[in-house]
Amino acid sequence: MFTAKVYIQLKSGILDPQGKAVEHALASLGFGQISTARVGKLIELTVDAADQAEAETIVRGACEKLLANPVIEEYRYDIQRAEQEAEA
Amino acid sequence: MFTAKVYIQLKSGILDPQGKAVEHALASLGFGQISTARVGKLIELTVDAADQAEAETIVRGACEKLLANPVIEEYRYDIQRAEQEAEA
Repeated sequence: MFTAKVYIQLKSGILDPQGKAVEHALASLGFGQISTARVGKLIELTVDAADQAEAETIVRGACEKLLANPVIEEYRYDIQRAEQEAEA
Repeated sequence: MFTAKVYIQLKSGILDPQGKAVEHALASLGFGQISTARVGKLIELTVDAADQAEAETIVRGACEKLLANPVIEEYRYDIQRAEQEAEA
């Protein structure tokens, strides 16, 4: 069993309206030191795979087919073996 | 200048409808090896601060006052000095 953390962000150059809204809200709240904000997604998955390579193949497939929009978003992921592993 | 990455997730035990939707969609697409999905936010900030400690104070304040809902969400952050630093 593996745990995958997938980080998805809009590509640089793609307008991020949610990030702009956060920037304005932060400025209104007195956080003028924060000049830019970009909002993305963090998706944690539990993956049943025999080894790290198989887990990576599954996670990459899930990103390409569902989780990320490769036209405007870029993604990266960390995969770790789940700690509470009894067998293996 | 510092770059902060803020990772926000629902606390464990809080229902995550978006994560459930992702789980079902993944199962429909044939990713039955992925048993759970939790969807959170990744927010990247650019912070103008004199040192790491000041940057942390600003980022923690922004999380508590705007970015995270501490009742149902937990957050963590990484702060790094921006690479393209001319002064300092």
